[in-house]
Amino acid sequence: MSIPWKGMTMCELLAMSAALPTDLETSLALLKPRGGELCPHADGWGVAVYEERAARLYKEPKAASSSRLFGSLRDYDISGRVILSHIRRANPAAIGKSYANTHPFEREVGGRSWTFAHNGKLTGIDQEQLTSFRPLGGTDSEHAFCLLLDHMKDFLSRDGGIADLDLALNQLVEKTTLMNRYGEANYFLSNGEHLFVHAHTYLHMLERHCAVDGQPQSVVLLATQPMTDEENWSCLVPNTICVFLRGEMIAQKATSGAATQDAWKAQQKEAESFRTRKAEAAANAARIEAEKDMYWECS
Amino acid sequence: MSIPWKGMTMCELLAMSAALPTDLETSLALLKPRGGELCPHADGWGVAVYEERAARLYKEPKAASSSRLFGSLRDYDISGRVILSHIRRANPAAIGKSYANTHPFEREVGGRSWTFAHNGKLTGIDQEQLTSFRPLGGTDSEHAFCLLLDHMKDFLSRDGGIADLDLALNQLVEKTTLMNRYGEANYFLSNGEHLFVHAHTYLHMLERHCAVDGQPQSVVLLATQPMTDEENWSCLVPNTICVFLRGEMIAQKATSGAATQDAWKAQQKEAESFRTRKAEAAANAARIEAEKDMYWECS
Repeated sequence: MSIPWKGMTMCELLAMSAALPTDLETSLALLKPRGGELCPHADGWGVAVYEERAARLYKEPKAASSSRLFGSLRDYDISGRVILSHIRRANPAAIGKSYANTHPFEREVGGRSWTFAHNGKLTGIDQEQLTSFRPLGGTDSEHAFCLLLDHMKDFLSRDGGIADLDLALNQLVEKTTLMNRYGEANYFLSNGEHLFVHAHTYLHMLERHCAVDGQPQSVVLLATQPMTDEENWSCLVPNTICVFLRGEMIAQKATSGAATQDAWKAQQKEAESFRTRKAEAAANAARIEAEKDMYWECS
Repeated sequence: MSIPWKGMTMCELLAMSAALPTDLETSLALLKPRGGELCPHADGWGVAVYEERAARLYKEPKAASSSRLFGSLRDYDISGRVILSHIRRANPAAIGKSYANTHPFEREVGGRSWTFAHNGKLTGIDQEQLTSFRPLGGTDSEHAFCLLLDHMKDFLSRDGGIADLDLALNQLVEKTTLMNRYGEANYFLSNGEHLFVHAHTYLHMLERHCAVDGQPQSVVLLATQPMTDEENWSCLVPNTICVFLRGEMIAQKATSGAATQDAWKAQQKEAESFRTRKAEAAANAARIEAEKDMYWECS
């Protein structure tokens, strides 16, 4: 059984790292209604699926729940070893709906697609200077992505890969600690091989193991909210970057700088308001339905 | 009335520059069957539509003619001032079908999407050294794109725009002349404002003018083959880069280095063979249909 939501955040993240290419069809189907129908993340959705060094990107600046493209994803062979996805609620609303403002973001480094999706608000991060990469849109998230890549690119191998994981992770911890100062920085960052996951405040993980055609398969799912209630999702330790490779966690390291709780509390309050309004709407619809039945019974 | 094809090339290009945002729905509908049904460009298709500084990319490594996504494009608001599209025939076939090998290609420079689509074969261009940009896939086309951007980026404004058109055009002529040495280099290159079109051997242009809500609208269509036969398409002068801005040609400049005619002749021969096979298949289908009718008449 799926869990529509427990609590609520500004955006929601869902990603996968797997030993063998696979799709996220079931999890994406559970994510879809949370983008605008069950939850108010109605300002955009995006999915990045890796095909060798390149990320196939599907995204739209509209609610996932009513998107025909999202609904058709199963037709487009969305199998890969790494998949990132995101449903967005623009905050502030002035940083509006547009393709450029929709996650995941993508840049090529050394002939590899690097992709990024973020949950949180990083007020003022645009004061950090950028050099090689610049945002196409107006979000703090894309600015943070450019900031990370500007710094990381000098510590990657010539082909955009991770030659020295300790070195790369140390650099990422340094820049993520800087991000943490501006707000909440839960994110996914990947080059199609390694998946870096920063749990700043709130991210969950599920491991699955099975065999596919006699080959051992390991899959790790990462999500803002647990996607199912019958499986053993664990909450990642806040202020930690975890590194996944082919379905296994291969490293983790702490970042510094706790997110302020104000934004989180405000979200919880708004979530409660949304729940109340949804419940009222449902009660209203039931009342109208009941009145219609009464009418038919009388006529 | 549409023209299915006159002659045939390895890939086909279609682009638009317009004063006011508009879509390419009719032209794309005419292009769709040429990607695998009427013509053998069945290895991929792509459309880049600009939304401010960002290009929305839709592409798939499969035949446009049978693509559900291509067929659904009208649902996704594909309006813009600049649109690039491409249908691909892999040549050589070893540089196979993949998302990374499908045009248009895209890179961010100065916070703008630069996009590129190419028709032709540039054998050996991968020996040209690259610095800032590297291919995600294995095509000569993407290598050429990276080569152009590596050179162009130093002559752009800080926001990825064209500050000095003469300067930018001179740089582009220099690198395009280098490309010409490797083969056939018909291409579109854009940053969402300016559209640079290199007619190396064979490209056509159509201008349309009208009023939209009292505003003057100018649209320029560029295509490998004329898309309609009742309009006045003109053939661009070979070895020329033309620059379009908001539906008007604002500059042009000659490149050097004629493409060899061997590849062109081979394509024409293959096109003739494809036409013959299509005609035979159609005759065969008609014969079967006629025999079926005879059967029904007898029974």
